[in-house]
Amino acid sequence: MKHLEKLKTAFSPKSIAIIGASRKPGSIGNEFLKNVIDDGFNGPIFPVNPNADHVRSIKAYPSVKDIPYDVDLAVIIVPAQYVCDIAEACGEKGVHALLVISGGFREIGPEGAERENKLKEIVTRYGMRLIGPNCLGIINTNEEVRLNATFSGAKPRRGRIGFISQSGALGIAILNYANQIGMGLSKFASIGNRADVSPNDLLELFEHDPDTDVILLYLESFGNPGKFSRIASRIVKKKPIIAVKAGRSTAGARAARSHTGALTESETATDALFDECGVIRTMSMEELFDTAMALSFQRPPEGNRVAIITNGGGPGIMATDACAGYGLTLAEFTTETRSFLEANLPRAASKQNPVDLIGDATKERYTTAFNAVLRDPNVDAAIVLFVPPVITNEVDIAQAIVDASKWSKKPILSCFVGARTDSPGYRLLSANRIPAYVFPENAVRALSDMVKYKSYRDRPESEVVRFTDVDKESARHIFSKYEKEGGMLLMSEVLKVLEAYKIKIAEYKIVKDIEEALDAASDIGFPVVLKGVSPALVHKTEFKGVVLDIHNNDELITEYKELVRRLSAKGIQLDGVMIQRMYSGGKEGIIGASYDQSFGHILMFGMGGIYVETIKDVSFAIAPVTKAEVEHMITSIKSYPILRGVRGEPPIDFKSLEETIMRVYQMVEDFPLITELDLNPVFMMKDGCVCVDARIKLDPKAFYNLPG
Amino acid sequence: MKHLEKLKTAFSPKSIAIIGASRKPGSIGNEFLKNVIDDGFNGPIFPVNPNADHVRSIKAYPSVKDIPYDVDLAVIIVPAQYVCDIAEACGEKGVHALLVISGGFREIGPEGAERENKLKEIVTRYGMRLIGPNCLGIINTNEEVRLNATFSGAKPRRGRIGFISQSGALGIAILNYANQIGMGLSKFASIGNRADVSPNDLLELFEHDPDTDVILLYLESFGNPGKFSRIASRIVKKKPIIAVKAGRSTAGARAARSHTGALTESETATDALFDECGVIRTMSMEELFDTAMALSFQRPPEGNRVAIITNGGGPGIMATDACAGYGLTLAEFTTETRSFLEANLPRAASKQNPVDLIGDATKERYTTAFNAVLRDPNVDAAIVLFVPPVITNEVDIAQAIVDASKWSKKPILSCFVGARTDSPGYRLLSANRIPAYVFPENAVRALSDMVKYKSYRDRPESEVVRFTDVDKESARHIFSKYEKEGGMLLMSEVLKVLEAYKIKIAEYKIVKDIEEALDAASDIGFPVVLKGVSPALVHKTEFKGVVLDIHNNDELITEYKELVRRLSAKGIQLDGVMIQRMYSGGKEGIIGASYDQSFGHILMFGMGGIYVETIKDVSFAIAPVTKAEVEHMITSIKSYPILRGVRGEPPIDFKSLEETIMRVYQMVEDFPLITELDLNPVFMMKDGCVCVDARIKLDPKAFYNLPG
Repeated sequence: MKHLEKLKTAFSPKSIAIIGASRKPGSIGNEFLKNVIDDGFNGPIFPVNPNADHVRSIKAYPSVKDIPYDVDLAVIIVPAQYVCDIAEACGEKGVHALLVISGGFREIGPEGAERENKLKEIVTRYGMRLIGPNCLGIINTNEEVRLNATFSGAKPRRGRIGFISQSGALGIAILNYANQIGMGLSKFASIGNRADVSPNDLLELFEHDPDTDVILLYLESFGNPGKFSRIASRIVKKKPIIAVKAGRSTAGARAARSHTGALTESETATDALFDECGVIRTMSMEELFDTAMALSFQRPPEGNRVAIITNGGGPGIMATDACAGYGLTLAEFTTETRSFLEANLPRAASKQNPVDLIGDATKERYTTAFNAVLRDPNVDAAIVLFVPPVITNEVDIAQAIVDASKWSKKPILSCFVGARTDSPGYRLLSANRIPAYVFPENAVRALSDMVKYKSYRDRPESEVVRFTDVDKESARHIFSKYEKEGGMLLMSEVLKVLEAYKIKIAEYKIVKDIEEALDAASDIGFPVVLKGVSPALVHKTEFKGVVLDIHNNDELITEYKELVRRLSAKGIQLDGVMIQRMYSGGKEGIIGASYDQSFGHILMFGMGGIYVETIKDVSFAIAPVTKAEVEHMITSIKSYPILRGVRGEPPIDFKSLEETIMRVYQMVEDFPLITELDLNPVFMMKDGCVCVDARIKLDPKAFYNLPG
Repeated sequence: MKHLEKLKTAFSPKSIAIIGASRKPGSIGNEFLKNVIDDGFNGPIFPVNPNADHVRSIKAYPSVKDIPYDVDLAVIIVPAQYVCDIAEACGEKGVHALLVISGGFREIGPEGAERENKLKEIVTRYGMRLIGPNCLGIINTNEEVRLNATFSGAKPRRGRIGFISQSGALGIAILNYANQIGMGLSKFASIGNRADVSPNDLLELFEHDPDTDVILLYLESFGNPGKFSRIASRIVKKKPIIAVKAGRSTAGARAARSHTGALTESETATDALFDECGVIRTMSMEELFDTAMALSFQRPPEGNRVAIITNGGGPGIMATDACAGYGLTLAEFTTETRSFLEANLPRAASKQNPVDLIGDATKERYTTAFNAVLRDPNVDAAIVLFVPPVITNEVDIAQAIVDASKWSKKPILSCFVGARTDSPGYRLLSANRIPAYVFPENAVRALSDMVKYKSYRDRPESEVVRFTDVDKESARHIFSKYEKEGGMLLMSEVLKVLEAYKIKIAEYKIVKDIEEALDAASDIGFPVVLKGVSPALVHKTEFKGVVLDIHNNDELITEYKELVRRLSAKGIQLDGVMIQRMYSGGKEGIIGASYDQSFGHILMFGMGGIYVETIKDVSFAIAPVTKAEVEHMITSIKSYPILRGVRGEPPIDFKSLEETIMRVYQMVEDFPLITELDLNPVFMMKDGCVCVDARIKLDPKAFYNLPG
């Protein structure tokens, strides 16, 4: 928390030193100082420049140590090779935080990385906080502070959105565009190489920032996804987080051998992570802005029933289409609303939803519609469309919308179709906190993100279930063999570990000869499966060590002999043969876990068989995996209706399926060195779920501590 | 063609009468005249107004018949009740075309529809063409004509895009927004109620218009989809058509009983239709503009390999992500390109694709990158991103892009991230035919649409295959029974019809008693299926008239007796019992056809079994269905890899599958009264495809002639 206080100081310094403030017009050191001055920083600025007595009419000092006053924040804009010495001087001076704009660190290779490590060491030694290096800067628009410490040309507007950007270039674009559409920011931070201050730190800062209602994130990588998840989950109960995660496609295919590993792409994992912690993920920069505007201007709607009010049929239809596409419902008006509209709108107007006020609609006609529709209990939110014809003044219509928003508690989003974002109507709307868009689809998408936020915010808390009946020590005993080198567990070991975690396995016996095999089959009941048991069979599947669907003693005898013969011909000595109950015709699933260097453990559930390979009907959850997440995994696969039962079949035993997944999760949580685990297939039946085959791979080296 | 000539005249009239031209400022009749005058129409304008001697200083006439000169086009802007009389007068006067702006026709109900019919009759009687009624107007920006016959406030820019809009309101928005982003139009038409001139007519007009390179369509409904398909397919070989089809979600669920009917939503049918005729469908208004700009400014690329050049990492990654999402490939540079970039770019720059010229990139550095990358044979197109930092002039970078486009034949799309569309750089780009966007994702999406157009344009022509070995007369004989009333075919009739069209059916015999049943089963070979044959079983499935998986004579005897007993207990008299070869464990498919009032016959193919109901892994084609379309249907389902063979299986017999689908199509083409047809399941094996069960429904009333 002391660290957080220092970060607060960085954003609300009482004084700033600008080291590298330059007299040369057009240089970054000059532009930077200009920005800080022009924005009216509420405190003294101390330029540091050994070659100048003053910069931009402000007294300059040769070194930070020569400043005869306290310095809260030091901005460093000098060539990389001088940065560490200056940081040392700042530490000695008692500066609380550094903002290092200079590049030339980790991003340029080993030499720069070494410099960055040194810088970090200095900062830690003096207990300072460091933003950057290699960043665009920070902004705080609070009236008491007025800090624009960036070299962007855009003058930030005051607003209630906090923005964290991992890319400096994008930071500039963000500030420019936000300005253009009249979107104000509370705080902005470009985090650069994040040698010290991470997005997670800034999330915590913004969490407690009374000026910030909505948090925007542009991320290229997670530092510590577990920590991100913990912090973000907490924050979204209070304020929405909207994120663009870039680098979606760059992760590429990973060389994992298990089904789970191969099916888990970084992309899916990111989706799962955001979904689990309730962060709204937008797929483009435009959507980020659209949604931010909506959530910072209006409260999210109570539900997803939308009223559309338009003065043109075409745009109304486009909005209706978009509603269907984004999972929103067109509200069914009450009889009262319909009668009111019938009585008060012209004949040619459409009184259904979408309400079409037709081309010559005036301010009064819009107001009439608002009075009925926004009071309708079946309506949760309104989208107001307006196409400016020659004869209507767009400012009038904007004013009608603003007036309605004064008394209505329901969110109103507006679209002045094809309008300029600097047109007077658009300006009036955004100045009055009405989200305004140029295309109908954008308004609808933003509203759907508001609905999503509401559902994230209100969903009940869920816990990780831990079973107390597991025999962790037995499992530890088996895993300990692999603690150093890792490797694939033997079949007998896999079975023991699953048993220790009370994961149901299809009934089996391991036998030594045909007589035992016949006894076992008689106990288990036909049909049965034969599986050769040998370390040599763990890694190789081409040896045909499995025989399915044996129906009687004769077949068993023949196939047993043939199995032993076939394998010994290939030089495989069997430790025994497994006789296992044969399942067929049921619903085959797959449950898996894999370890990802960016995300930690990822759980997977899906339909098995050839469909898992082609349709890829699978779902994921990132550790920690709560009960609600397990339920979500099961219900979110496309084939879920099949599990619920089609054509009059009974549903599968969902309780048993959930339990199996949760027990798998408990195992990987207990033993992080499990890097790949597949239960495949799992037969999902109406009275239980049974695992038929499984493999587990351990790799103690893969697991490492993630950065803060 | 005479009709097309008159339509040409409407867009390039030598003289115009404006009937309803008003002296009242702000009225549509006044604004309209003002637009025509202000745009400098290259011919005489004759205002018609019985109460004014002149309007806006132009001599006015009491009636069109009083004009002592020829009138090519008459614009009618008077209350609906006067329109027909005026149209009559125009006919007598010898006017070639009417543009009826007035509303009050079909859109207001039966009274208006009657008026519209009368208007249409008058127009037809005099051989005039009619645009509207209830429309926004038309525009022709050709220098020789300069016709702005709309009441929109936007002054159209000259360009090479032809726009057809079914919505007047959207027309206004389109004109406003096109203006804003500097997009010029060749011609614009708001078609209103399309009493006479349809989108299809306008497509043909624009097809032959030398001023139009790209055609944009906003449609809410197809008039005649067959005709649309024919015309559009022809046009896209010469110029791209980009369409937004609205009303996607309004069609709602249709009450069709067959699988095919239920699975075919209007949405999917629209997609299939556009895809078949090569029309690029965009899902939003914004995409329509984005893609139009790209295709009207640049030639489509030869392939999908993209080079990204940026001055900021973040935007580069976002563009890369978007490329993956839209099916574009990041180009792999040649060694030459890489060496050149290594030698000529600063150390910190990234010389891989995306090329990151870093924040201080100048015009010269961009030019260096263009010189290498645009000449690389592995590159088909370039996306140039620029984030304007303080120290670089955006106009310089824009100029560098313009210069490169002068010598490079490859399309270049630009994105000045977060910029204003009226910024000097953006303006310079669009003035020089460089598509310019504000967000990276939009540029990528537009480029992907260009690639799609190229593939549409270049795909080989394909023909409908017609088999000469079918016995159409036998089928006609059976269908003739249903010509009046329609209904479900009996099982025996279905079988005969399929046999007549040489569609393979699983081997069967219809028997009268157990003895015949045993003989049949012995001929066919076990396992077999029993099916009760009776008209009562056609409509009802709850009677359990089918017994699967009979393995031997004993089972056959038992089940035969039980079937007869069960059905006769329910009062069902059997005409016989079908003994059919039992297939199982193979790949089950479904082939269907259904008749849709908007689209005509729609063919469906998909995976059968429970997956068809849950995953809905199906594909569609709209009649006429060519061989290439059949191939596309098969390869485009998600489970296609399963058909090709997974886990070492052989592929199914694709030739036989294609043939089966084509024979089904031939049947519905021959007998349009087939409204529902399902072959379900069809067993798809390595040596042929066999239909096991089928149903056919006829409805002579459903089939009607579609409008022109």
